Amino acid sequence: MSKFLININGLFFDEDTAKISVFDRGFLYGDSVYEATRTFNRIPFRLDHHLERLMISAHKIDLVPTINEQLIKERIQTTISASPHDNIFLRIILTRGTNSDLGLDPGLACENNLIIISKEIAPNPKWWLERGLSLVFYQKKNSQKGALSKSGNYLENVLANKSAIEQNAYDAIMINNELHATECTSSNIWIVKDGVVYTPPLSDGVLEGLTRKTLIEMAKVKKNYTIIEKSLTRDDILKADEVFISSTTRNLVPVTTIETKKIGNGLPGKLTLQLLESYLEYVRHENQININK
Amino acid sequence: MSKFLININGLFFDEDTAKISVFDRGFLYGDSVYEATRTFNRIPFRLDHHLERLMISAHKIDLVPTINEQLIKERIQTTISASPHDNIFLRIILTRGTNSDLGLDPGLACENNLIIISKEIAPNPKWWLERGLSLVFYQKKNSQKGALSKSGNYLENVLANKSAIEQNAYDAIMINNELHATECTSSNIWIVKDGVVYTPPLSDGVLEGLTRKTLIEMAKVKKNYTIIEKSLTRDDILKADEVFISSTTRNLVPVTTIETKKIGNGLPGKLTLQLLESYLEYVRHENQININK
Repeated sequence: MSKFLININGLFFDEDTAKISVFDRGFLYGDSVYEATRTFNRIPFRLDHHLERLMISAHKIDLVPTINEQLIKERIQTTISASPHDNIFLRIILTRGTNSDLGLDPGLACENNLIIISKEIAPNPKWWLERGLSLVFYQKKNSQKGALSKSGNYLENVLANKSAIEQNAYDAIMINNELHATECTSSNIWIVKDGVVYTPPLSDGVLEGLTRKTLIEMAKVKKNYTIIEKSLTRDDILKADEVFISSTTRNLVPVTTIETKKIGNGLPGKLTLQLLESYLEYVRHENQININK
Repeated sequence: MSKFLININGLFFDEDTAKISVFDRGFLYGDSVYEATRTFNRIPFRLDHHLERLMISAHKIDLVPTINEQLIKERIQTTISASPHDNIFLRIILTRGTNSDLGLDPGLACENNLIIISKEIAPNPKWWLERGLSLVFYQKKNSQKGALSKSGNYLENVLANKSAIEQNAYDAIMINNELHATECTSSNIWIVKDGVVYTPPLSDGVLEGLTRKTLIEMAKVKKNYTIIEKSLTRDDILKADEVFISSTTRNLVPVTTIETKKIGNGLPGKLTLQLLESYLEYVRHENQININK
């Protein structure tokens, strides 16, 4: 059985046959936007939020969708139904389309291409919760202010991740021109200090993760945690009591080492683990409501 | 007959069949480098310079080529030989390869993909030399210092070009954070003031065009023009006697209007046209030497 199930413009392929034209603008120029999400027992996590963000990303790069949101949703649902797995990862890529000629002019492409890559999601390795992850810092070359869009121009994150791997770390915390922490290469970054949870504001050049958004919403609704959006320096992070990352596919994962320095007592933080439990319960509850609807 | 001839990893395709895996890192992350060049009567323009620059671009994004320079050269030569046309445009794309799984880690791809897209090059439209082009300015969001690499992260240039087209201009002059002009979206920018030719230095965030490099070299060798690399503001450009762009595929093209303002007397500049003649002669001479070798 193939590992991946890929939907390209409504047709299904496996990883050996899933191909796109070399004239696709996503391939030529990174002229595409994307979303990464998952299902919990065949229910996509906050699909409407993901689609809304996909449309915001498209808008940010002046990509006028030729495929409407409803059709994108249907294609995602069809892919989930066709998958043999209950818990899948989904990468949804919308490119500006296939060029009729070489050239930057977006007018050379008439119709978007929609590619949905799905695969079974593996549970997080157990040791992540037992020992926590190790991160390093990475100084960004291209520093952009404001909330970022999820586009096919992802080279800086590739280089940040590569640098981390070369240092035997799990990932890198990217630092902007103002020397503020922004995010990891595919997750948001959080710290805990004196019982308060902090994460960088979108204005520092952060992609608004949907798990990030859900955590902030949960803290407001349930009033069980204090979460503050605040610029964070390298020093703030190194001196934190706890550090963790969040992403839709990995939920919350504790970080116990940064640049070979232990965070707190060097073990996954208590509040981090509590937050993770609260988050999973919150999401399960939301899914239950979705199932019963 | 198909318009394009495409060489993918040594095999030929036309535009309808030339496809790449959706797991190619160029498609997923813009994780690729490229060159654009042309042939003059089946002789590639400064192929060694282009290959050298491709290797420099690769190095800048930590892409270790798994295809050596000699093989890339052979594939280009094979493509030129297989083309029915004497004067062709070539886009040479080297991607980090096809991922075995989703993920930023470059280690997920073992072998680069090499794609060479070729098509007959049309002569520049006659009116370009008669009336000159019209440009606008575009303020970059991502401003990077130093010489740029030609990578698959080209979205900012796409947006700059789109903005120009929407203003009925040919292209945009991109402006960096320091408010200096850098380049157009696929060409270098030049001005003439009091008989001296100026172009922005690479340190302002400029891609080192090979026609730019050839012009500077020619001026040094033949001592017929004074060319100075110097930061240029919007104002320097608007108040210039002449403005022109340069690119390997279009050679030199006069610019006569910027942001609806006439440059000089509103006609293609005399020195620009002289430089174009000198350049074409210089290149023809070089090719003659190549043919006789």
